[in-house]
Amino acid sequence: MGDVRVGHEELIRFVTAVFSATGMTTSDAETFAEVLVWANERGIDSHGVVRIPGYLKEIDQGKFNPRAQPLLRQLLPATFIMDCNRAAGPVCMMRAAALAIEVAHQFGVGVGLLSDPHHLGAIGRYAQWVAERGYAALVILAGLPFMAYHGAKVASIGTSPIAIGVPGPGAQDAPLVLDMATSVAAAGRIRQAAAEGKPIPEGIAIDPDGKPTTDARQALAVLPIGGPKGSGLSLMFECLTGILAGTPIIAPPSGAKGPIQNAMIIVFNIANFRPSTDYRRDIQQLKDVVKALPRRDGFSELLLPGERGDREAELRRRTGIPLPVKLWTELGDVAQELGLSRLSPS
Amino acid sequence: MGDVRVGHEELIRFVTAVFSATGMTTSDAETFAEVLVWANERGIDSHGVVRIPGYLKEIDQGKFNPRAQPLLRQLLPATFIMDCNRAAGPVCMMRAAALAIEVAHQFGVGVGLLSDPHHLGAIGRYAQWVAERGYAALVILAGLPFMAYHGAKVASIGTSPIAIGVPGPGAQDAPLVLDMATSVAAAGRIRQAAAEGKPIPEGIAIDPDGKPTTDARQALAVLPIGGPKGSGLSLMFECLTGILAGTPIIAPPSGAKGPIQNAMIIVFNIANFRPSTDYRRDIQQLKDVVKALPRRDGFSELLLPGERGDREAELRRRTGIPLPVKLWTELGDVAQELGLSRLSPS
Repeated sequence: MGDVRVGHEELIRFVTAVFSATGMTTSDAETFAEVLVWANERGIDSHGVVRIPGYLKEIDQGKFNPRAQPLLRQLLPATFIMDCNRAAGPVCMMRAAALAIEVAHQFGVGVGLLSDPHHLGAIGRYAQWVAERGYAALVILAGLPFMAYHGAKVASIGTSPIAIGVPGPGAQDAPLVLDMATSVAAAGRIRQAAAEGKPIPEGIAIDPDGKPTTDARQALAVLPIGGPKGSGLSLMFECLTGILAGTPIIAPPSGAKGPIQNAMIIVFNIANFRPSTDYRRDIQQLKDVVKALPRRDGFSELLLPGERGDREAELRRRTGIPLPVKLWTELGDVAQELGLSRLSPS
Repeated sequence: MGDVRVGHEELIRFVTAVFSATGMTTSDAETFAEVLVWANERGIDSHGVVRIPGYLKEIDQGKFNPRAQPLLRQLLPATFIMDCNRAAGPVCMMRAAALAIEVAHQFGVGVGLLSDPHHLGAIGRYAQWVAERGYAALVILAGLPFMAYHGAKVASIGTSPIAIGVPGPGAQDAPLVLDMATSVAAAGRIRQAAAEGKPIPEGIAIDPDGKPTTDARQALAVLPIGGPKGSGLSLMFECLTGILAGTPIIAPPSGAKGPIQNAMIIVFNIANFRPSTDYRRDIQQLKDVVKALPRRDGFSELLLPGERGDREAELRRRTGIPLPVKLWTELGDVAQELGLSRLSPS
C-alpha cells in the first residue's frame, strides 16, 4: 500500500477545520495545525497528524480541553508561569515563546514555565520560531514515563527532549535547531516496529525482565542515551519544569490529577550580548568549519542540527506530505464524524 | 606503587600556597583550591590537583593569568558578561554564580556569560554551590575540540559538559547535581589508559582513519553520546557561549587569540515560582520514587545525579584523598621550585 500525498495548505486547512469543530477558536486551531503539519513536513511524522485520532479521543475523555485558555501568572519580571489546564500545547507554547521574546527584549533573558499543557508536539518548532525572530531559545520538556531510569527495569521517566535554536547566518537562512530526546530511540519507533512485526536494533529497549531485546513486541521501555547521562538529564528536566511549576509528573501528590507534560522555555536576547550581525557572521564561520571537516567512511556529508529536517521540508513542500493509507482512512473517518470535507490528495 | 593519602585541609593549604605563590590573591587562591580539591574529593580526579603542573606551565607560557581579574559588563538587567582574560576559571565562575543569584533574586532568573576564562575545572561544583543556596542552576561550557563531530574523523568539537543542580529535600541534604560531558567518555580516561598500556572499551573513540578503536594509543578523538545528539549539544553550547560572548573557539576570527573555554550560567529563583518548602518536598518524593524502582540485573541500587560523588566525598573526607605516587612526586617538585613546604600525608 503506497502513501497518499497531501499538500501543505490542504493539510493545514483540514487540521484547522478538525480542531475548530472541537470548539477551539479559529486562531488557536490554526496555530495547532501549523505546529502539527510542521512536524510532518520535516519528516517527524510521529509528532504530526498521526496524533489527531488520539487527541480527539482525549478531548472526549476530558484529558485535553480545546476550549481552555492558558492563564498567565507574571512573577519576578524576567519570568512567568502559564497555567495551561490541559489547553492545546502548541497554543500555550506559542504564546509563551512570544511573551518570552518580549521579556528578553527588556531584560536580556526571558523564562516561561508551562504547567500542565496538553501534548506540546515537536518542541523544535518553538526553538526554530524564536530563532527565526533573531533570538536564541532553549526549550526543555518533561513527559510521561516511557524510558527506563538508568538501572531500572521499568518505564520510569520521560524520554524528555531538549531543543536549542539559534539564528542562521542571514535573515533568509534557516536557523540551527537541535531537537533531541534523552532516549536512544523514540518510543513511537518501537510501537511502529511492533505494528509492522519488525525487529528493533539492539541497545534501544529492554523487555519486562529488564534484558535488552530486539523484539519490538517485548520492548517495555526505551533506554536513555549514555545510560546515567540521558536519564539524569530527564530527571533534572522534571526538577526544572513540573516540580518548579508545582505540577510534577513522576511523583505527583497523592490524589492529584497527574499532568502529561510540563516545559520551560528560555529566550536569550542575542543583541543584548553582541551585535547580531557579528553573531550571524560567526555562525556562518562555524557552519563552514563543520562542513569542511574530513569525514568517516559512510558519511557523504556532515549535517548541522536541523539540516535534515530543513531538506525534508523543502522536498515535502514540493511533492506533498506522505500519509500512510491507514492514517488516510482514519482521517477520512474523522472528517465524516465531524461533518467536514475530506482531505484531497495533492 | 600505592597511592599517598592526603587530608582535605592539607591539600587545600597546599594548593592555596601554590597559587598564592604565582601572584594570585589569597582569597582567589583559596577559591581556586576549593574547586580543585572538591573534584578530587568526589573522585573526579581528572579535574583535581593532577592539573597543577600543567596550570603552572600555562602560567609560564602566558596562557593563564593568575593576577587577572574578570571585568564585569552589566547588560540588560537579568544578564551580564564577564570578560575573564584568562583569569583563573574557578575565581571567575564563583563570582558569576554569586552575581547570578543576586540577579535571580531580583528578576526571577539570572544569566551570566563567561568569556575566555582559563580552565573552569569541574562545573558540577558551581551548580552544586548555587543549589546549596536554595536556587537552581544550569551551567554549560564549550571547550577545545577533543571530540569528533558526528561523522567527522578528527577531533573537531568540545566534549562540552552541562551541569544542572537543584536543592535537596532539606537544607542539610545534598543537592541533586548532574554533571556530564557530551562525549561517551572523558578524553582524560583515554590518556590514562594509554599511559597504563590498557585497552579502552569499544565505541568511545576513533583512530586516525576514523575507525572505532580499542587501542588507547591509537585513539585520536572521543565520540559523542548518541551520535548526532551529543555532538549537536556540543555545537549548540558553542553557539550559546563563545559565539554569544564574541569569543568563539571552534571557528575564531583569523588571527584572534583562541579562547580555551567559554561558559554560561543560568540561575533560577525557585521561591519565585513556588514556595521552596513545597519544592523540596516534591524533590524528596521524586527521590523516593526513583529509589524504589525495580532494578535490572547487575544493579544493587539506583543512584541519583551526584550521589556517587557525595559518597566518595564522605569517604575521602574520612580517609584522605589518594594521590598516585607520580603525582605526589610532581607536587613535591612544585613545592621545591616555589619554596613551599611539601604536602604531608594524612
